Amino acid sequence: MPDLAWVNGEVSNLLETKVSFLDHGYFFGYGVYEAFKVYAGKPFAMEDHLDRLERSMKEIRITPDFTRDELTKNIYDLVRRSELQDAMVYLQVTRGVGPRSHSPLKNPKPTLGMFVSYLPPIPEEIREKGIKAVILKDDRWAHPFIKTLNLLPNVLAKQIAEENGAYEAILVRDNGSISEASSSNVFAVFGDTIVTPPLDGKILSGITRLVVLRILEKSNLKFKEDYFTDEQLRNADEVFITNTGAEVLAVTSLDGKPVGKGIPGPKTKQLYQLFMQEVPSYL
Amino acid sequence: MPDLAWVNGEVSNLLETKVSFLDHGYFFGYGVYEAFKVYAGKPFAMEDHLDRLERSMKEIRITPDFTRDELTKNIYDLVRRSELQDAMVYLQVTRGVGPRSHSPLKNPKPTLGMFVSYLPPIPEEIREKGIKAVILKDDRWAHPFIKTLNLLPNVLAKQIAEENGAYEAILVRDNGSISEASSSNVFAVFGDTIVTPPLDGKILSGITRLVVLRILEKSNLKFKEDYFTDEQLRNADEVFITNTGAEVLAVTSLDGKPVGKGIPGPKTKQLYQLFMQEVPSYL
Repeated sequence: MPDLAWVNGEVSNLLETKVSFLDHGYFFGYGVYEAFKVYAGKPFAMEDHLDRLERSMKEIRITPDFTRDELTKNIYDLVRRSELQDAMVYLQVTRGVGPRSHSPLKNPKPTLGMFVSYLPPIPEEIREKGIKAVILKDDRWAHPFIKTLNLLPNVLAKQIAEENGAYEAILVRDNGSISEASSSNVFAVFGDTIVTPPLDGKILSGITRLVVLRILEKSNLKFKEDYFTDEQLRNADEVFITNTGAEVLAVTSLDGKPVGKGIPGPKTKQLYQLFMQEVPSYL
Repeated sequence: MPDLAWVNGEVSNLLETKVSFLDHGYFFGYGVYEAFKVYAGKPFAMEDHLDRLERSMKEIRITPDFTRDELTKNIYDLVRRSELQDAMVYLQVTRGVGPRSHSPLKNPKPTLGMFVSYLPPIPEEIREKGIKAVILKDDRWAHPFIKTLNLLPNVLAKQIAEENGAYEAILVRDNGSISEASSSNVFAVFGDTIVTPPLDGKILSGITRLVVLRILEKSNLKFKEDYFTDEQLRNADEVFITNTGAEVLAVTSLDGKPVGKGIPGPKTKQLYQLFMQEVPSYL
């Protein structure tokens, strides 16, 4: 079966799905999105994702013309029709269609679009070796906590990472503190303490980050939300990223130099296991 | 005749023109654009616009699969077919279509889209009264000199301006200096000197700004490219904005308080006249 898309109520083959040239999501990146994983045919942490979607819409003044119940039903329907067990649901809401002008659209009707596509698990080899990352300047706008379609700095950072043989770009602010990565949150282990930057409006509130923090709260592991610099990160005992696709994934090389012993550390491995144990309760 | 669009070689009614849901311009705002005015059926300053488009594409790593000559011919054809005398040509190039991933597309084919639509001249009443502006925080990314589709901060600023009864939002950086406005460059007159912020990478190199500076160089008017603060702007003798649609337009109110005498000043009026005299040489 081809990947299926759903746009404002119409289901179609994703590869053939079209949107209006006049969509303000296209002209201005005026929209917000969510991407969530499907395990065993069931969406993961959907309530958390929909909570964030609602916050994002409010932040950029999009008033949905659908209810959360309708959206939920449509997501479940599309996942069921896709027949996929391991998949990603991608969902975006844009301001809507109208004449191109910086002025706000009058009576905009948001464009709600989504699709489901197969998402293979992270290969076992990558889990065992960990990934390489580079550290780049965080040159994004002032409000990265809003999950908008203005993602050019993120995709450019990812490109630079890949050109340097790395998988991810970790971003550092002008003041020297690490914010997050191009499409993931960053955690570091210093001694016996797991640290991740706090939600100060300058990073995304990742759902996997949230689930990991809930796991840490229930565990006997030491952790805190706090800032660290790129220099501190380079000297961390362990580094890992979290996001929907990668779950909890070790970073074993930074700018070409090994992190700790250059292999996934014990706390990262433990958290990945705890995370996978927690998955069923979020389905 | 309906407004016409042209997307990767196909001409259609703009209102019915579609693009792929999988366009990276839609997912990531991964694209650049130009908008230029048509006077008497002829595009204005097209070479300057196409120079900038080429710079923009290079900055975000889009390799065009069309030559400048082909693009020029297609623009002229579309303008002719539109039969419009006073119009705006809008033109954008995105990374192209492919699976949604932050990773770079392999062998991307850029999506080149454009349309021509009627653009009425600024009403005489607005020219005579000038416009109102508000001053807002510049919360954009680190490289606003690239004319990208990541325009959410700009359209949100414009919305806030309109909600406050103003036409434009002038942006001020954290360090107190004015950068530009949501969709225009800013000039101020202090005594006998016309001042506009320099091209430091944090503002767009507006084509109207460029033409105005060329006019100033040929004139006996005093001018310089230099920084000024929002406080200095509030005390300026005259303020005006420049962009493709507005040409040279007086700002006579800032945050509800009059600029100078609250009417368009003599230097602004003189520059508007000089600009309109210069237009034919750019067609």
